[in-house]
Amino acid sequence: IHRGSADGAEMMAAWILLSCAWAQGMRAEDFAMEELATEKEAEESHRQDSFNMLTFILLLTLTILTIWLFKHRRVRFLHETGLAMIYGLLVGVILRYGIPANSYHNKTPASCSLREGPTSTLLLNVSGKFFEYTLKGEINSREIHNVEQNDMLRKVTFDPEVFFNILLPPIIFHAGYSLKKRHFFRNLGSIITYAFLGTAVSCFVIGNLMYGVVKLMQAVGQLTGKFYYTDCLFFGAIISATDPVTVLAIFNELHADGDLYALLFGESVMNDAVAIVLSSSIVAYQPAGANTHQFDASAFFKSVGVFIGIFSGSFVMGAATGVVTFTKLHCFPLLETALFFLMSWSTFLLAEACGFTGVVAVLFCGITQAHYTYNNLSEESTKRTKQLFEVLHFLAENFIFSYMGLALFTFQNHIFSPVFIIGAFIAIFIGRALNIYPLSFLLNLGRRHKIKGNFQHMMMFAGLRGAMAFALAIRDTATYARQMMFTTTLLIVFFTVWVFGGGTTPMLSWLHIRVDVDPDQDLQPSADSFQVLKTKQESAWLFRLWYTFDHNYLKPILTHSGPPLTSTLPSYCGPLASCLTTPRAYEVSVHVHTKTANSVSSDGADTAGGSGWSANGKRSGSTSEEALERELDSREQELLSRGTRLVFPIEDHI
Amino acid sequence: IHRGSADGAEMMAAWILLSCAWAQGMRAEDFAMEELATEKEAEESHRQDSFNMLTFILLLTLTILTIWLFKHRRVRFLHETGLAMIYGLLVGVILRYGIPANSYHNKTPASCSLREGPTSTLLLNVSGKFFEYTLKGEINSREIHNVEQNDMLRKVTFDPEVFFNILLPPIIFHAGYSLKKRHFFRNLGSIITYAFLGTAVSCFVIGNLMYGVVKLMQAVGQLTGKFYYTDCLFFGAIISATDPVTVLAIFNELHADGDLYALLFGESVMNDAVAIVLSSSIVAYQPAGANTHQFDASAFFKSVGVFIGIFSGSFVMGAATGVVTFTKLHCFPLLETALFFLMSWSTFLLAEACGFTGVVAVLFCGITQAHYTYNNLSEESTKRTKQLFEVLHFLAENFIFSYMGLALFTFQNHIFSPVFIIGAFIAIFIGRALNIYPLSFLLNLGRRHKIKGNFQHMMMFAGLRGAMAFALAIRDTATYARQMMFTTTLLIVFFTVWVFGGGTTPMLSWLHIRVDVDPDQDLQPSADSFQVLKTKQESAWLFRLWYTFDHNYLKPILTHSGPPLTSTLPSYCGPLASCLTTPRAYEVSVHVHTKTANSVSSDGADTAGGSGWSANGKRSGSTSEEALERELDSREQELLSRGTRLVFPIEDHI
Repeated sequence: IHRGSADGAEMMAAWILLSCAWAQGMRAEDFAMEELATEKEAEESHRQDSFNMLTFILLLTLTILTIWLFKHRRVRFLHETGLAMIYGLLVGVILRYGIPANSYHNKTPASCSLREGPTSTLLLNVSGKFFEYTLKGEINSREIHNVEQNDMLRKVTFDPEVFFNILLPPIIFHAGYSLKKRHFFRNLGSIITYAFLGTAVSCFVIGNLMYGVVKLMQAVGQLTGKFYYTDCLFFGAIISATDPVTVLAIFNELHADGDLYALLFGESVMNDAVAIVLSSSIVAYQPAGANTHQFDASAFFKSVGVFIGIFSGSFVMGAATGVVTFTKLHCFPLLETALFFLMSWSTFLLAEACGFTGVVAVLFCGITQAHYTYNNLSEESTKRTKQLFEVLHFLAENFIFSYMGLALFTFQNHIFSPVFIIGAFIAIFIGRALNIYPLSFLLNLGRRHKIKGNFQHMMMFAGLRGAMAFALAIRDTATYARQMMFTTTLLIVFFTVWVFGGGTTPMLSWLHIRVDVDPDQDLQPSADSFQVLKTKQESAWLFRLWYTFDHNYLKPILTHSGPPLTSTLPSYCGPLASCLTTPRAYEVSVHVHTKTANSVSSDGADTAGGSGWSANGKRSGSTSEEALERELDSREQELLSRGTRLVFPIEDHI
Repeated sequence: IHRGSADGAEMMAAWILLSCAWAQGMRAEDFAMEELATEKEAEESHRQDSFNMLTFILLLTLTILTIWLFKHRRVRFLHETGLAMIYGLLVGVILRYGIPANSYHNKTPASCSLREGPTSTLLLNVSGKFFEYTLKGEINSREIHNVEQNDMLRKVTFDPEVFFNILLPPIIFHAGYSLKKRHFFRNLGSIITYAFLGTAVSCFVIGNLMYGVVKLMQAVGQLTGKFYYTDCLFFGAIISATDPVTVLAIFNELHADGDLYALLFGESVMNDAVAIVLSSSIVAYQPAGANTHQFDASAFFKSVGVFIGIFSGSFVMGAATGVVTFTKLHCFPLLETALFFLMSWSTFLLAEACGFTGVVAVLFCGITQAHYTYNNLSEESTKRTKQLFEVLHFLAENFIFSYMGLALFTFQNHIFSPVFIIGAFIAIFIGRALNIYPLSFLLNLGRRHKIKGNFQHMMMFAGLRGAMAFALAIRDTATYARQMMFTTTLLIVFFTVWVFGGGTTPMLSWLHIRVDVDPDQDLQPSADSFQVLKTKQESAWLFRLWYTFDHNYLKPILTHSGPPLTSTLPSYCGPLASCLTTPRAYEVSVHVHTKTANSVSSDGADTAGGSGWSANGKRSGSTSEEALERELDSREQELLSRGTRLVFPIEDHI
């Protein structure tokens, strides 16, 4: 390696320093005579902003270069997100201790008094001239001196809403859009149980344990501010959002078991949504009258109502926008991609504008789009959209994790309380255990294909905390309790990502979880038809009902795949059906039918079952599970072959 | 068409209204008891923001759907940018007149007085609690009532810096990155002349004419504010930035003449850069002492110095970051793409942080990356980066144009002065004419391959104004003069895009400019070897010198293409050369050599010339132009075949 990337980075760094120094010199000479102080200050501030952004960009660049090195050398003990945090920490240390506290302007900020409450806009009258000011937020009286001093540190502090409105949506959308559908739907029941019931259990267990810790701290006299029961529950909600990004990256690389992957991924994606709605319901829990922070049944039910309202509203909104998408923009991939991007973003904004939760809406929008819209896109566009969101997701995720590292040193109001931190560490383990083991036991009662002990241990181990916990914690750091929570959350994220993330590979082999599963092998039901028979039981009547409805009515109406409506609708709906069916659907139908027929004949085992739809398209009776399995398979395989850019007609694999 | 996109849009609109109404109802019920007024206001403001963003997104969605319809029906009289402006206008009208002026909060903003000047941060003391405010800007005393009233209109007004820091960079970078190199380099001299000399001529002509108009208005008494000579020059600078996006889109679609395309595209890309630096140099022109706004030689030369300093600094910075890029990240397209994106953005930020012009740096970064880095990227990444920037560019451009439409009705401080507007229209035509015709005459003295009369008329006609003029005009609308300029610029953009943009197709046929040029045909010099002989003369000694240097030293060091350094460096540099050459370069070299040899033998005509490099790699003497032409051709063809995803070894076309 003569001219490696490391050299490039070094060269670049040296060159930046050099040219910046030169430019500073040039400008200092040229603009020395400039008189307007405010204009100069504004320019200085703009340059400072650019410089701060540049710091982040260079951090990300450095992370990418190191990731490349790690991937090249097959290093697995540290994931890119862990790496991003380390670099963030380093830069945070430099910003905190390397730069003199007195930055370029050390004036005391002017202050003025008003008797009325704060308004969003304030006019300042300076000898006849009017200046407009916008409200940034309340600050503690003890922080006023910080405002004066650590201007540099304050500058790198982002508005928390940036995380929620700009960085999280692409991450969550990508998660929904890239769900591996077959394994996901096969384990849907278990995933929903873990995500809803499990997160609620975890939230309440952690909340109550932390309330005990807080009481203990009060008794010992270690608590200097207020810390209510609702605060504890809020902490339980934000820290229950798992984010096994490291674990899943390693699973992907090692080709670990598909079902375990689906369980972990599905749970983490869904419980992000649950945690975000749960935390806002807890904030909405405000008992009426004087007995604030006491239990109040009506307020509690209102909170539950808010939870159900917001969650179902966001779900419906996301699913609906995912479904209502263009069908006929083929031939113009650029337009399709742009439209796809805009539709996803507008889902987020629409939900926010209506008072729902944008992140949740975007998640279900992604899942729905992967299920329906994906089939309508041209081949070129499917690739483009996937790649676009992949890049956005990658950048956003690494940005959040490097910002976390940075925040440990640059955030101004950390409250490190050892008792609280140790208590929190113990509480999250107990919470996770009471989530996974009892629920797995209950689920295993109903599942034919049991969740084995080693899978349960792995799920216990993979409970990392990440971007969502951080974003929820940083959203509001105004009170004493919230500041302590933020510090603790940050430390929990660091610890779990580094220790558990790094320990994934050893843990997998220690628990004897099979790796190097050939995805093609795993996808072929014929390879292990016994497994098919087992998993089939999981698709309970509710799911079967939904599947039949989806397959016979939704898919034909919304996409070009599936049987034509003319064959699935009762005959008296004939005219309506033929009016809703595009010519393309007939084509596709014939193609799929041929394929299914081939697969059945070559499989041999269940020819009698009569999978797929017969010539007139009606589903042939009771063996819908096999058809389901097979269709999920063939779709996944189509996806796979699309991904590897095979443009020839697909051979039949089965 | 049973379920067209229009239906989808309608359905979506109806559904949005419905679900929003429901959500509003639900929330109104649930949160009626909420007491904190400021929290409610903040939430309201957040929803308002989301709603505004949503307006823009839906506007863009509508634009895309209509574009698709137009493309489908092959409508050419209205380009997507023109369309975006029309939709923007409609939404602007609705916002202005359709919504009652009194928005949700009609409090008079609180005001307070200070004796000192305005600072960037202000503390407000409300009965012991401190609130932090940030400076938004000065406002005229007559606008204070607007602050109170038209909150909705003010909300949709973006910070002008958004245009400069977020929307322009991808547009400009994409322009640089997608330069068609062969035609561009063939006409480099002419393009630079038009862009630098031409823009300066246009700026001064327009500036002086407008000064005459302003004097006239003063005499008639139509001018109610101050309007200095520097203001006129500034107007000349911002309005000289041409943006023939419509024209070029049609050229592309009709496959119009490649040289004319290169001239127009190159000029418009470069003169954006010139205009932006020119305008900031004019702002920097501040004569010392009492005689402000009089001519001052020292201030003038300082402005010229600033121009040269900023331009060359930005150029060097952009070119350097374009060059200093990773070379060995193959196999990980996601990392490569992300890194590429970050590097381009960091160029912009770096230039801004150092006080140069980010947009100019990004332009040259794009050109350099297309020239060098592109060769180092893996095939997958070249496609990904191209598509990524294509989408970003598309979205940003349409956003700017629809915002322009919106701004005509929602901007608060329009000053419509008919005399000034008519004067400006006349001035820009005279300025454009004095740019194109005299310079073409001068260039034709030196060019063997003349710029014909019909080409000159087409260039005259294609002088549309667009995104850059708008962004420069909106950057500062504080004074009377600037507000009048902004209004006039907006009208000029509307007029030129709609009228000239729409008239391109008739104009092309009226001027007998050849269309339907087969790009493959056009690329083969053998198809018209006479033309090659002619254009060859254009590559003057300076260009030849640069080309030789680039080909023998820069390319081998920076990319894997070109001859290995071991053969181009003198023999005494042997060890150094072999240390700087990668194994891949040798491979490529052999490949290229074989190709060139083939091409020479099949061409037959200039076998004696000995093009390409011989076995030991030394350039063989005087016929470098043919080699240059051929190399540019073969590279372009490689690009083409990459673009169409041919992965087979390329046949020799020549």
